[in-house]
Amino acid sequence: MTDLLLKNIRPMGRETADILIRDGKIAEIGAGLDAPGVVVEDGQNALVIPGLVEAHTHLDKTTWGMPWYAGRKGGVLQDLIDNERNERVPLGLDVHRQSMRHAIALIGTGTTHIRTHVDIDTDHGLSLLEGVLKTREALAGMIDIQIVAFPQSGLMVRPGTLELLDAAMAAGADIVGGLDPSSMDRDPKGQLDAIFALAQKHDAPIDIHLHEPGELGAFTMELILERTQALGMQGRVGVSHAFHLAMVPPARIEALMERIAALDVSIYSTGHPSANVPSLKAMRAAGIRVGIGCDGIRDTWGPWGEPDMMHRARIVGMKNGFRRDEELELLLDTASGAGAASIGVAGHAVAVGSAADLTLLAGETLAHAVVLQEPRPLVIKGGAVVARAGHAVIEAP
Amino acid sequence: MTDLLLKNIRPMGRETADILIRDGKIAEIGAGLDAPGVVVEDGQNALVIPGLVEAHTHLDKTTWGMPWYAGRKGGVLQDLIDNERNERVPLGLDVHRQSMRHAIALIGTGTTHIRTHVDIDTDHGLSLLEGVLKTREALAGMIDIQIVAFPQSGLMVRPGTLELLDAAMAAGADIVGGLDPSSMDRDPKGQLDAIFALAQKHDAPIDIHLHEPGELGAFTMELILERTQALGMQGRVGVSHAFHLAMVPPARIEALMERIAALDVSIYSTGHPSANVPSLKAMRAAGIRVGIGCDGIRDTWGPWGEPDMMHRARIVGMKNGFRRDEELELLLDTASGAGAASIGVAGHAVAVGSAADLTLLAGETLAHAVVLQEPRPLVIKGGAVVARAGHAVIEAP
Repeated sequence: MTDLLLKNIRPMGRETADILIRDGKIAEIGAGLDAPGVVVEDGQNALVIPGLVEAHTHLDKTTWGMPWYAGRKGGVLQDLIDNERNERVPLGLDVHRQSMRHAIALIGTGTTHIRTHVDIDTDHGLSLLEGVLKTREALAGMIDIQIVAFPQSGLMVRPGTLELLDAAMAAGADIVGGLDPSSMDRDPKGQLDAIFALAQKHDAPIDIHLHEPGELGAFTMELILERTQALGMQGRVGVSHAFHLAMVPPARIEALMERIAALDVSIYSTGHPSANVPSLKAMRAAGIRVGIGCDGIRDTWGPWGEPDMMHRARIVGMKNGFRRDEELELLLDTASGAGAASIGVAGHAVAVGSAADLTLLAGETLAHAVVLQEPRPLVIKGGAVVARAGHAVIEAP
Repeated sequence: MTDLLLKNIRPMGRETADILIRDGKIAEIGAGLDAPGVVVEDGQNALVIPGLVEAHTHLDKTTWGMPWYAGRKGGVLQDLIDNERNERVPLGLDVHRQSMRHAIALIGTGTTHIRTHVDIDTDHGLSLLEGVLKTREALAGMIDIQIVAFPQSGLMVRPGTLELLDAAMAAGADIVGGLDPSSMDRDPKGQLDAIFALAQKHDAPIDIHLHEPGELGAFTMELILERTQALGMQGRVGVSHAFHLAMVPPARIEALMERIAALDVSIYSTGHPSANVPSLKAMRAAGIRVGIGCDGIRDTWGPWGEPDMMHRARIVGMKNGFRRDEELELLLDTASGAGAASIGVAGHAVAVGSAADLTLLAGETLAHAVVLQEPRPLVIKGGAVVARAGHAVIEAP
């Protein structure tokens, strides 16, 4: 593991100090540190925060670095899903190459942890997973990648998918995924019983895409919470999007959030600009573990997005109507330290004893850094420099 | 006026051609043009569109280029208005300097026309207007600036403001502004009668901020439409924000949009991420003239925004759930040619006879250019190069 002396940085925006890293962990934080023989990096008075955490994305989907894809469709969710499943091969979307491009761009912009969903379906089997597994291996030590085996095309409606999810978990996926058990799969009890059983079998966490609106989404959330409690899976279940938490009446939202917090279910939000999204402040105030994510980046679904958690933080912040410095600081925490906790990575902090996964930011204060469109001066993973001036130290394919 | 031969560009994404500019106007578009003695610019195969149009901003408010402002407040609209009015002087917000920074940054990002609101209130009199008038004069020929005399702190609730608006129009403002005649001013009939009379007196157009929600906003909109019709002000009235057009029932929205189109009232949208915003596609389909704007940039109200209409177009596009190429092209048109029409600038096009106000964009296609975060290669105003590689040819103060 790596030793490094990081000089002249402002930990969490506090006064200028140095950070000594020993064996990939933060050994000391203080002024005027000295460590003979240890490599020195001058932070030039940049801010330093725990590395950014991408809590919800799809490394297997992006067209980043490919020619412009002009075939995007309108329509309902099912149309977008079908379009992608049918276009992957003709488009030449090589998942290993594309997930490398995506993940390396995230390293360049200061991300140290990714949770990615990977499509598992009866057309592609485990081939997409294999591409992302190769990427995880290739980037080991530079970025941590958690993989969700994600039944994008449906579970109950596509026989054979459950067996593939089982195989995906055996092949190296970390987390059992789910998708709109009611609206998409038409059988909420069926899907949820199946994925909770699979999670129990593999002793794995769960992460469910839940776009379902209003009371339908609230009903499905209740089914998830019931199973979390009954199976003792507190702290191991996550729900992505949860638009219903911005659509049902305020008292119902409050009661749901209270129960979500009590059962320690994480919520992942992308601040989806054209959807209703749950209030970040309300979730944090309720004690819910929350992470944020970019979701798909320039994929067959949509043209938007940048592989940059600061870009996404701004979208989430604008969506939440944040204005004040304390709100921007809450946002930055959700994109880094608190975001890590939401995906089960504890102790992600600029603190002695923590892993030296650190991102330097330009800016006068943490709040200023949130809105400033500047490259990250330096990114450190396990004590090693993995990016400088907005670019990862390795080239993307 | 200026002559220029712009070689190797793709007009509106079509095949590569040249554009010959004579006396500030587009004289010829074609392949292999030659014009002895005329200065040549090589467009290096960039796309070219009519210059971007900022249809709703506040040049008198930005802290751009100043130290980070940490004093932003929460609360209701009135709190934000009061905070700004009280903080302008202690903050040292020099309106001429700040509006120069803001407008020059807009030139650098490819904007050729701005409509700006400028606060007129009984605390500051016309002093903020004077700062923006100086900027307009200093940048004459580089960017066109329309000025709305804007009663930000209220009209009926602050006696003396109407007289100041009158004086502002005499001093050089072009457009009579208004603000939430019901919710803010508590007297919709009073405010609207006053500003329509003032517009008649100065033979000037009107532009009204209308944030009012739901049926209240629809009611105020009806009052505006009634006066537009009664006074024969078709084509000279604009309404900014119009959130109610995304809040009342669909049939009511449709009927309102039909009447707005029939009376040729323009709508300006900022794609406000945390508000309900009217559908850009529905407005355009109804035949309404629509422009988009960045609104305030990093001002005392909020930390967000960039002085860049392509950045704003992406926000508006994401908010509208646009995915397909034709939607991105509609968006780009609303930010340029159609946006110009919405502020009364006709014939803003890449066409023979049009003013040579042109913005070059990187990208494979127009749709690609919308999502690509790249500097504008070249910006031309009246045939003169005013920006290169993302930077205006003059320095900001």
